[in-house]
Amino acid sequence: MSTLIKNGRIITASDDYTADIFIDGETVGTIGKNLALKADKTIDAQGKLVIPGGIDPHVHMELPFGGTVSSDDFKSGTIAAAFGGTTTIIDFAIQGKGMTMTQAHEAWLAKSEGKCAIDYGWHMAVTKFENSDKAEMKRLYDAGITTFKIFLAYPNVLMIDQPTVYRVMKAAGELGGMTLVHAENGEAIEERIRILVSEGKTEPKYHAVSRPPVMQADGVARAVKVAEFAKSPVFIVHVSCESAMMEIVRSRDAGNPSYGETCTQYLFLDESCYDRPNFEGAKYVFTPPLVPKENIEPLWKGLKLGYLQEVSTDHCPFYFKGQKELGRETFTKIPNGGPGVEDRLSMTFHGAMQRGFSLNKFVDITSTASAKMFGMFPKKGTIAVGSDADIVIFDPDKERTISAKTHHMNCDYSLFEGFKIKGMPETVLSRGKVVIENNQYVGKPGDGKFLRRGACATA
Amino acid sequence: MSTLIKNGRIITASDDYTADIFIDGETVGTIGKNLALKADKTIDAQGKLVIPGGIDPHVHMELPFGGTVSSDDFKSGTIAAAFGGTTTIIDFAIQGKGMTMTQAHEAWLAKSEGKCAIDYGWHMAVTKFENSDKAEMKRLYDAGITTFKIFLAYPNVLMIDQPTVYRVMKAAGELGGMTLVHAENGEAIEERIRILVSEGKTEPKYHAVSRPPVMQADGVARAVKVAEFAKSPVFIVHVSCESAMMEIVRSRDAGNPSYGETCTQYLFLDESCYDRPNFEGAKYVFTPPLVPKENIEPLWKGLKLGYLQEVSTDHCPFYFKGQKELGRETFTKIPNGGPGVEDRLSMTFHGAMQRGFSLNKFVDITSTASAKMFGMFPKKGTIAVGSDADIVIFDPDKERTISAKTHHMNCDYSLFEGFKIKGMPETVLSRGKVVIENNQYVGKPGDGKFLRRGACATA
Amino acid sequence: MSTLIKNGRIITASDDYTADIFIDGETVGTIGKNLALKADKTIDAQGKLVIPGGIDPHVHMELPFGGTVSSDDFKSGTIAAAFGGTTTIIDFAIQGKGMTMTQAHEAWLAKSEGKCAIDYGWHMAVTKFENSDKAEMKRLYDAGITTFKIFLAYPNVLMIDQPTVYRVMKAAGELGGMTLVHAENGEAIEERIRILVSEGKTEPKYHAVSRPPVMQADGVARAVKVAEFAKSPVFIVHVSCESAMMEIVRSRDAGNPSYGETCTQYLFLDESCYDRPNFEGAKYVFTPPLVPKENIEPLWKGLKLGYLQEVSTDHCPFYFKGQKELGRETFTKIPNGGPGVEDRLSMTFHGAMQRGFSLNKFVDITSTASAKMFGMFPKKGTIAVGSDADIVIFDPDKERTISAKTHHMNCDYSLFEGFKIKGMPETVLSRGKVVIENNQYVGKPGDGKFLRRGACATA
Amino acid sequence: MSTLIKNGRIITASDDYTADIFIDGETVGTIGKNLALKADKTIDAQGKLVIPGGIDPHVHMELPFGGTVSSDDFKSGTIAAAFGGTTTIIDFAIQGKGMTMTQAHEAWLAKSEGKCAIDYGWHMAVTKFENSDKAEMKRLYDAGITTFKIFLAYPNVLMIDQPTVYRVMKAAGELGGMTLVHAENGEAIEERIRILVSEGKTEPKYHAVSRPPVMQADGVARAVKVAEFAKSPVFIVHVSCESAMMEIVRSRDAGNPSYGETCTQYLFLDESCYDRPNFEGAKYVFTPPLVPKENIEPLWKGLKLGYLQEVSTDHCPFYFKGQKELGRETFTKIPNGGPGVEDRLSMTFHGAMQRGFSLNKFVDITSTASAKMFGMFPKKGTIAVGSDADIVIFDPDKERTISAKTHHMNCDYSLFEGFKIKGMPETVLSRGKVVIENNQYVGKPGDGKFLRRGACATA
Repeated sequence: MSTLIKNGRIITASDDYTADIFIDGETVGTIGKNLALKADKTIDAQGKLVIPGGIDPHVHMELPFGGTVSSDDFKSGTIAAAFGGTTTIIDFAIQGKGMTMTQAHEAWLAKSEGKCAIDYGWHMAVTKFENSDKAEMKRLYDAGITTFKIFLAYPNVLMIDQPTVYRVMKAAGELGGMTLVHAENGEAIEERIRILVSEGKTEPKYHAVSRPPVMQADGVARAVKVAEFAKSPVFIVHVSCESAMMEIVRSRDAGNPSYGETCTQYLFLDESCYDRPNFEGAKYVFTPPLVPKENIEPLWKGLKLGYLQEVSTDHCPFYFKGQKELGRETFTKIPNGGPGVEDRLSMTFHGAMQRGFSLNKFVDITSTASAKMFGMFPKKGTIAVGSDADIVIFDPDKERTISAKTHHMNCDYSLFEGFKIKGMPETVLSRGKVVIENNQYVGKPGDGKFLRRGACATA
Repeated sequence: MSTLIKNGRIITASDDYTADIFIDGETVGTIGKNLALKADKTIDAQGKLVIPGGIDPHVHMELPFGGTVSSDDFKSGTIAAAFGGTTTIIDFAIQGKGMTMTQAHEAWLAKSEGKCAIDYGWHMAVTKFENSDKAEMKRLYDAGITTFKIFLAYPNVLMIDQPTVYRVMKAAGELGGMTLVHAENGEAIEERIRILVSEGKTEPKYHAVSRPPVMQADGVARAVKVAEFAKSPVFIVHVSCESAMMEIVRSRDAGNPSYGETCTQYLFLDESCYDRPNFEGAKYVFTPPLVPKENIEPLWKGLKLGYLQEVSTDHCPFYFKGQKELGRETFTKIPNGGPGVEDRLSMTFHGAMQRGFSLNKFVDITSTASAKMFGMFPKKGTIAVGSDADIVIFDPDKERTISAKTHHMNCDYSLFEGFKIKGMPETVLSRGKVVIENNQYVGKPGDGKFLRRGACATA
Repeated sequence: MSTLIKNGRIITASDDYTADIFIDGETVGTIGKNLALKADKTIDAQGKLVIPGGIDPHVHMELPFGGTVSSDDFKSGTIAAAFGGTTTIIDFAIQGKGMTMTQAHEAWLAKSEGKCAIDYGWHMAVTKFENSDKAEMKRLYDAGITTFKIFLAYPNVLMIDQPTVYRVMKAAGELGGMTLVHAENGEAIEERIRILVSEGKTEPKYHAVSRPPVMQADGVARAVKVAEFAKSPVFIVHVSCESAMMEIVRSRDAGNPSYGETCTQYLFLDESCYDRPNFEGAKYVFTPPLVPKENIEPLWKGLKLGYLQEVSTDHCPFYFKGQKELGRETFTKIPNGGPGVEDRLSMTFHGAMQRGFSLNKFVDITSTASAKMFGMFPKKGTIAVGSDADIVIFDPDKERTISAKTHHMNCDYSLFEGFKIKGMPETVLSRGKVVIENNQYVGKPGDGKFLRRGACATA
Repeated sequence: MSTLIKNGRIITASDDYTADIFIDGETVGTIGKNLALKADKTIDAQGKLVIPGGIDPHVHMELPFGGTVSSDDFKSGTIAAAFGGTTTIIDFAIQGKGMTMTQAHEAWLAKSEGKCAIDYGWHMAVTKFENSDKAEMKRLYDAGITTFKIFLAYPNVLMIDQPTVYRVMKAAGELGGMTLVHAENGEAIEERIRILVSEGKTEPKYHAVSRPPVMQADGVARAVKVAEFAKSPVFIVHVSCESAMMEIVRSRDAGNPSYGETCTQYLFLDESCYDRPNFEGAKYVFTPPLVPKENIEPLWKGLKLGYLQEVSTDHCPFYFKGQKELGRETFTKIPNGGPGVEDRLSMTFHGAMQRGFSLNKFVDITSTASAKMFGMFPKKGTIAVGSDADIVIFDPDKERTISAKTHHMNCDYSLFEGFKIKGMPETVLSRGKVVIENNQYVGKPGDGKFLRRGACATA
């Protein structure tokens, strides 16, 4: 099977030119002007952007959480991702109580195998780690799980103690891997939650009151400093506020390999969402919560200046009906998370263009940086000879309105309901195969394969 | 009993003038030119500085530590302090396992009563605190213990968890008190200690390796952020490095009442001391350890610009023979601490004059700031009508060499052995009574009284 | 003549106590509890604050400017100052074209002699300086003019070129003096003024448009860097915005003796004043102009944390009728300046108390810091034995409304018209003589003397 | 003419893959695996890096300076550049006294035409600019000169006053161009030079004493602030010290399009070079001078983190014999400048690899960033279909020693004499034509063409 994409404006993290792309099977074979090669299928990309498939390195499909399960499984979630122009996701395999990391890996393989529309991998969320577990970590690393996630939040559930943090960071760094951190002061937050609840402050908005920016900055300050102590790279997930971001900036300025991401929702929404009536604030209950509005432009600036590396979604949808409602009585029972994997690429394009980002930078923060940072480059994250033909034909001028009515995520609401934006993926190829075309999913479950990732590039 | 100090150059934290001081009993009665009042005793201070008695807000007398006890008790330690021009100390009453704060207070009263040469108080070192303990905290506050110390280091011994940190800070702040923090990432440090010891790295210098500046900066970042979360003032004790100091500076710049001190030893010594042969590095084993030399001038700058508020000693001496030697086998068994209460005022004077500090600033960082910060002003910390006559006649030109041979602390070594300095307390009055004169202690144990402190001034 | 002030709460930059003050002629003779000394006059200060007379180190009396003259002369201006609790002013003697510095000094002496209600001095505003003028500068220094002002604004009028800046700074620093700088990029501003005027943008608000904060930050960055190059102390006058202030902070953090002040108006008013109708915006035309509101709290913070040293007024009033109106046609013809010398102490008290400043800090920023910084301490700036008895009995609870109807400045409007504030000077003594009592001026012109100032204390 | 480069490892600013490149005439036609296209010439690049030709955006060929002329003309200089792997240079056409910008452009065309081995352009160095000159600026912009250089140094020679600075920045910005600034406080420096010379301090090292880092930081602070005032992009040339770099960083962090470069010499050499005996210090007399060693690593960090955009050379060679010697009597007569155009690419590669830069970043700072910033992308600065085939086959493992004996620049000394480095250009193509091969220049003068540049990309 071969495909020829004609006359598109090809954008990578640094290039911008018009040419034809000949896809030979699953990878890019030749790029040239007026290619005379014969192909099984030809796509006319005239007037369109041809960009590397998006990478969302932070999603949670079918995640058990607080007695329920996130509403997108690996099938519906990856199809929605593909509609949104994302051709690679990284989920998190979570080492449950009494489970080894290997067992977590296997459990996630079982959940995903044969279901995915696009390629996928996972970070290993470590909840227990002794030095004797280094050999197992090495085996996982060799199996393509080269990034390890730890939690400084959720005490007694996912949070690990500081000696374990140090051990994980050191072990991961020595392998050439990286440690991802959910960075908040989880314990101090728990104390405030107890106080709020005891005072009857149980509406959704108290979720934000319980974990304000300073507690995120605290977690980040700690994470980057322990990483410096362990001489290991560190990556802070879902940074939502300026103060937390600046802790990363100062660490990197001091010479440390400290990095971070933000998520689509933090680039557009602010804490005023929690004031919505009829319990609708619960739709925005995820962690970290939305923060004051004055953080939004600094996050965009951070992406532009390289303070943050990429945009993910922390996609973890729950239905408002029946799921979010579990917390009607108290915010502590609202399942944490929201839908997003489908909207990331387009929303980021829209916001980035409004702020004068170059197209190259847009590609970098939605695809290339993640590919490099998380060990998938140059297989993923670019359009270059030899790379996987994960390609999006993107119409930069298409105007539309985001709505749960039209999205493909398995969720009864959208975080961006009613947003009018410009720019939409038109045709999406995953390893050379067209999976989205004419606004239809034309692939089949199982097209997507588990991705063995390699060493993390942090330079 | 009345005393007249004639013709001295009186220096306070802001004034500088020449006058006579008439002391009426324990307090300053009148200040004037050529006072014609009759006094029981007259002191000629011509050519000398007349300064408020020094305040050392961080000492540990007779402290049980690692199976031994610090070698100065409240008698020897306070006499040494008086020789050094310090007329007020604040010790730390430590809430041992299974003990209430009140019991700790009583234990410290029992140890100190009738023994002290100068006035004294203590911070309450809290190791357990539930919201139900607020009433007890209030009683201690009303009894004059208005500052509460917590440890982010020494897990399983003194360290408290984050919910407790939050509770203590909030409760102390609501009372008008302040929380003092030993700020390090104690748990990550413990992990490195385990690794060092397992690798046979047990010499004294590994004490410094186990807890480098970044782990102190981590502790400070956390302390100031949780204090901001609790909306309470916080004071970081024994700051030894620039990076930790800058965390305080940033917090205060952001509008928070965050403060800190450094100690004499950090203003003169650096980590090269640990390389001394014959186990002599153990003399410098205290926490935080000495750090790279490039931190010294920033600390002085910090004092000059108000980044740090005062200079204390963390006085906690142990004999080299018999005590420090307990750790010959491994640094983890070296009792932590060193002698210093006698040298603080003179060493700080010497260093401050070399760096162009005003005399006012010298008085501020050795006395006035502590009096205000820790609720003793204007009773202590100044020379003003109505204030306690805690006064030092200080000879700014006297040259001498610091040595264990001549010091009065109960310790067989000096941290500053051989340092040649300029400036020495000549006559020392505690509440109107001369206690040091002609290089002799002329007071009697029990002159010093327990000091009820009040609200902390942090503006 | 002797005076006894009984039972007042005496506040200095560091002390706070209740005592009696016996004034022996012009200076403070004795301070004590229940002083039994006989005095010619006794003042009951029970319930009042007794503070050092205010110092306003930045005023312009009877200043020729743009074809008119500022409306307060040394008589009316110093009486108004006294009403406001200010007992010392420093004006600026300006070296006009073709004039020597000595001639400027003499011209200012001629204007002021025998007219002043309070003590006064001046900074020498240098507009021409060759190395051959060093001897003359030394003579002025010895005559008590120890501070030298230069302009980086007003090209072709007052601005000096960079070689002259360097020469003045170096020469002043070598003498023990200090250079004050009006710091803006005057030339770039002139260019924008030309453009604005050419575009017909001539309303008062374009004054602010022509010189926004970035041009002040530019001037300050330059001033502190040339001072560092010349290894001399520098003091930035009338800092009105955060960005300019932070340039000083960074310079001092880097070890340089760089300082600054702000003025009352910048602590309360913002650029929205320029939008007032009927040409009333012209009332607020002074330089630097008012800036966006978000600068106000940072300036207060700067005073609290020592980023800025004191509050002055840049008092330079012009009548709205007849004077400000000269610029009806174009803002470039509006005389620059506003009234303020009377309101400084009370307005600062009001604002400082609202923000939790200590009373000591209030005294420091309105009196003591200026006394030290500008070579008048301890003669001025404190209440201590031997100091000039420049004393204000201040009623902290008196409520009132600021208005041009009741002020004593010779100006038909007030910058703070209608502000309701708390705190008012009740009785004011200048060198032991009561000059304000029962809301009346009871002194006589000529009471105030020219003040020889000494070396500047910058530590 | 067609060329096939086989099997090379192609590195761009973001990509890294192995493929064949088919060059069709002057541009890249096709990139693919095992291309079967027939070519006139085939180059085997197995084991080599294939990178975009270097761009040196800051050189001075045949520049009249202080009575002499820089020793490389456009022929020798561009051949040397080609040997060094640089295929594009940007010189500076200087508007001499009484000359229009157009005349300067023509003079530079006359000097260069038919002589160059590689493509070239120039920035227009503006020394006089009224608003009436905007039309002429527009014509130059349309002719491909889209960047304008101004001097804040060299008063009375090249320096322009602040109104002119503002006008140039505003006019250039409005066109889509950019203003480059030589940023020092030239006037204050001149004053110190006069003093140094008057004191007999005339050896080469006083060149550095006369213009220390603080005067560069001053110039940069001013440049970025006036640019902010003019709302225009600004680019600081030859940044040599951390303090100056940080002024750019702060400006960009505040949202302004402020950028900068450093030069090879500042990345390797420090001020100790001026102490070399026998007047050899004169070899390092260029402006800004070399600075203290502690600036070197911050500059590398700045390149890595994007604080600075690229590495140029400020190539402006003078013979030690006969030219540098003109200043034997006094440093003010030493022609300012040094050789460098040939060494830039290799030296930067060597230093970047030592510090863990990615190959992509190396390409970015030596080629791509300049192409984008200075309006030549994607024609120059990348290897992509349609781009000019300016390509270097680079041997990353070749070890050699830099020496004037082997370099091709017309200069009798090398700044890097004796440096042992790894990495060397092997084959160099300029617009598809091999110009360097087997260590020989195989092109002919005139191959290189004047380059019309377009809008500057600053996002």
